[in-house]
Amino acid sequence: MSDEKVLDEWKSMLAQQNIELLYEHISHLQPYDLAEIIKNLEYDDQMQCMSLIPLPLGAEILEYLDPELQYKILARTDDQRAASLLNKMSSDAVVDMLLAVHPHQANKLMDFLPDDYRKKISTLMTFPPDTAGSLATVNYIGSRITWTVDQTLHHVRKVGHEAEIVSYVYVIGAHGELVGVVSLKEIILAPPGTKLADIVTDDVISVPVDMDQQEVASILSNYDLVAIPVVTRENRMIGIITVDDLIDVIHEEATEDFQKMGGSQPLMEPYFKNSVWGLFKKRIGWLLILFIAEAYTGTILRHYEDTLSEQIALSFFIPLLIGTGGNTGSQTVTTLVRALAVGEVRFKDIYKVIGKEVSTGVLLGVSMGVIALLRAALLGVDLHIGAVVAITALFIVIWASMVAAILPMILHKLRVDPAVVSGPFITTLVDGTGLIIYFTMAKLLLHL
Amino acid sequence: MSDEKVLDEWKSMLAQQNIELLYEHISHLQPYDLAEIIKNLEYDDQMQCMSLIPLPLGAEILEYLDPELQYKILARTDDQRAASLLNKMSSDAVVDMLLAVHPHQANKLMDFLPDDYRKKISTLMTFPPDTAGSLATVNYIGSRITWTVDQTLHHVRKVGHEAEIVSYVYVIGAHGELVGVVSLKEIILAPPGTKLADIVTDDVISVPVDMDQQEVASILSNYDLVAIPVVTRENRMIGIITVDDLIDVIHEEATEDFQKMGGSQPLMEPYFKNSVWGLFKKRIGWLLILFIAEAYTGTILRHYEDTLSEQIALSFFIPLLIGTGGNTGSQTVTTLVRALAVGEVRFKDIYKVIGKEVSTGVLLGVSMGVIALLRAALLGVDLHIGAVVAITALFIVIWASMVAAILPMILHKLRVDPAVVSGPFITTLVDGTGLIIYFTMAKLLLHL
Repeated sequence: MSDEKVLDEWKSMLAQQNIELLYEHISHLQPYDLAEIIKNLEYDDQMQCMSLIPLPLGAEILEYLDPELQYKILARTDDQRAASLLNKMSSDAVVDMLLAVHPHQANKLMDFLPDDYRKKISTLMTFPPDTAGSLATVNYIGSRITWTVDQTLHHVRKVGHEAEIVSYVYVIGAHGELVGVVSLKEIILAPPGTKLADIVTDDVISVPVDMDQQEVASILSNYDLVAIPVVTRENRMIGIITVDDLIDVIHEEATEDFQKMGGSQPLMEPYFKNSVWGLFKKRIGWLLILFIAEAYTGTILRHYEDTLSEQIALSFFIPLLIGTGGNTGSQTVTTLVRALAVGEVRFKDIYKVIGKEVSTGVLLGVSMGVIALLRAALLGVDLHIGAVVAITALFIVIWASMVAAILPMILHKLRVDPAVVSGPFITTLVDGTGLIIYFTMAKLLLHL
Repeated sequence: MSDEKVLDEWKSMLAQQNIELLYEHISHLQPYDLAEIIKNLEYDDQMQCMSLIPLPLGAEILEYLDPELQYKILARTDDQRAASLLNKMSSDAVVDMLLAVHPHQANKLMDFLPDDYRKKISTLMTFPPDTAGSLATVNYIGSRITWTVDQTLHHVRKVGHEAEIVSYVYVIGAHGELVGVVSLKEIILAPPGTKLADIVTDDVISVPVDMDQQEVASILSNYDLVAIPVVTRENRMIGIITVDDLIDVIHEEATEDFQKMGGSQPLMEPYFKNSVWGLFKKRIGWLLILFIAEAYTGTILRHYEDTLSEQIALSFFIPLLIGTGGNTGSQTVTTLVRALAVGEVRFKDIYKVIGKEVSTGVLLGVSMGVIALLRAALLGVDLHIGAVVAITALFIVIWASMVAAILPMILHKLRVDPAVVSGPFITTLVDGTGLIIYFTMAKLLLHL
């Protein structure tokens, strides 16, 4: 059934106040599906649906909604229910919401939290965005090294309802430090009476609070974990990051790199959340920089004005030659920027990369040179000009490959995001230098 | 400690045959780290390390290696140990390896598997690459609806060692059909004696064997699952796909889209696994198509040869104007291709998208027009030519935004991957049409 049909059905159930049927639907849908429906209802209908949904499910659904909508719903829910919902939401979602709303509104909501939980939330709110700390949730299961597996299972049964994930139990020391980790699998498979100390893994893979979220994502995916603990510099346990949040990070970072490669600043919100003015601001910066950089092609061309006047046919091939250079550069640069982002290529490989790209460039250049010669013959221009075009194509392609291979590597080394060398950037860079190659060849071979 | 230092240390331990120290290191490292070290050793050292590693860990490490290396190691391991390793590897890894090696080699390895497991593996091997079936592993925990939670836990303890993930127990019917799912969390939290039937979720989220892997990844990430069951059209359970495999899929698909957007066919292997000839073959196709498409700019310019001869200064702005068009087009197209890929934008939004992009294009066009006028003044060309350049910049930017907004939407509707409209593609398309706009303006305003 299409999304629209489902939505129409819900709207009609709400209009007819068919509460029984609504309950029936609610009980058969997943939290994600219910959230998708609620997102698309009118505000009053949203409120009514949320009021029909039982508590733990309501908190799960809230977590799928935007912080603004979460707040709007909580603000109009009666205090007691709002407090329950808030306390059942996972702490990372609560933090995101509190940071998104006005401090005054955040304070009002924080009054719903018990003292010690409010303190934890306040701490989580201090971590800068895009760091491990900002993604952490405190809803993990902790244990003591002295416990047996039976004691631990008893504890899991007691607090498991509130945990975001029960796959791991973290062993915490007397001063809040992370001592080790035991998977629930190991606990279940161990004979009753086994001490945690006998099955704990003490070389825990953890990340510091200030680690960049992209790095956290790659650690989690390298080690095939479903959650990773976050600790302070002193190894004090802050919380855990679960795999679903890191999948969102992987999507986000890929989207940002994508937009950068298109020569624009990354949009921080989904497409339709950006206004025309917002899109303009993200794009005009690079467009202007590239325009100014490209403007030197005018200077180059004016420098060769006499050559051009003498052989106007030379101008026919300008877009073709610089375009080919730009295309080759784009191919190389996108491949390398991505390879650097996922860690397939490192700076120490720079000579290997240049060797590979220039060799490929020679093969591509020779092919394009031959085709360029054919194209010149087809346009019926002087054979000498054809030769100039062909040789220029060869050199431009090799040149573009080389520049596009070196630049991202160097930026990566300088800890600048290599995605700054976007397709448009490399195209612009190769345009001017390509013209110089072209006219130098023309002067040499045509004796102008 | 850097990777190289670690590797040097291992090489020296191996050279000195310091077995005790090797054991010590092995016991303190994660499977992923051991695999990274083994990957970079010589073949003989690889074999020695693998022989020192205890069995279940050995199988885990193998799973991190390439299928070719997995086979090379298994082929030189004695039959009994090779059989144990193979049987402890997860079935999706076994399938990948068997499909990567020669059928003759695959058959030899399959003899190491017990009959019923071999049959399952043979079935898994029939699913086409990039489908849900090709990613499925049969190492999941099944149960019967009549069991109590105690019986189920007893079963988990018995078979859990071989399961890839114990987070979910799948309830299977008499004919192998998927009846429901219970999370291990629910099993643990339920009072002893509870029947599975009372806590089972029967609206299971599952995927058909032939679903595209990218779609599976987005379902898993929408519903925040750590594993998803794969079923036949008749709802027979084939296996499960775990989140770590789907994270790899998300990375792969983003890399492919990235490379496509750079105007090249996606590389199927990590960067350094591609030979120069391989890179050439992936790139020459689009380069040629774009060259041939770009060649019509020559025809357009020759058509305006007289105009150009009369006003050679017009040629100074050709790269600048078509470059700006290409840059604007790249910005729009990369944003939209990604938004379509992650599902933020759908075909039904086409008018909204065009409206948004053209409005943004007008803002950008006006800005670029003003700057172009300044640039022309700076180059000291005729003010009339300056006006032509400015107006052309305005129109080219709007035109490029519109083309770059419409094309990916239509391709998406036609079920062609919108990433075909790469940056280089849109640049090429806008180059020729931009020239027509330019010379039409010139003829109109300069009365040539």
